[in-house]
Amino acid sequence: MRVKVFISPRKGILDPQGRAVEQSLHTLGFESVANVKVGKYITLEVAAKSAADAREQAQRMCERLLANPNIEDFAFEVSE
Amino acid sequence: MRVKVFISPRKGILDPQGRAVEQSLHTLGFESVANVKVGKYITLEVAAKSAADAREQAQRMCERLLANPNIEDFAFEVSE
Repeated sequence: MRVKVFISPRKGILDPQGRAVEQSLHTLGFESVANVKVGKYITLEVAAKSAADAREQAQRMCERLLANPNIEDFAFEVSE
Repeated sequence: MRVKVFISPRKGILDPQGRAVEQSLHTLGFESVANVKVGKYITLEVAAKSAADAREQAQRMCERLLANPNIEDFAFEVSE
């Protein structure tokens, strides 16, 4: 199964990379851009008996390694 | 409009962060995990006349700043 994980800095947490990207976009002429957040996009393959099994593994991977629960939110998608 | 950008190391490009995550997942017991790639997940808001306008702006942002065309692939989604 293929898993896509989306990790974002939690609302209210300082995101200096997002601030830097936002300022650069303004400088390039994209003046209306706001609320830029820079997180991580992780893709992987995992052996699983079912989509539910893959989702359960993905949830545990996020909780145990991929995301920092103190400052990041995560979501994921599972596909064949 | 809200834009989500997904940036991944291109196939064949060395991804040391992905290798490190993959090894850590194996160590944690997720032994079947393979092909881990670590990229960037960027979310932002942009003023746009239409979804097509937002997509056109997002394409240009990726080409001009967000993605490195030499080593990364990008995709994006636009929503209200």
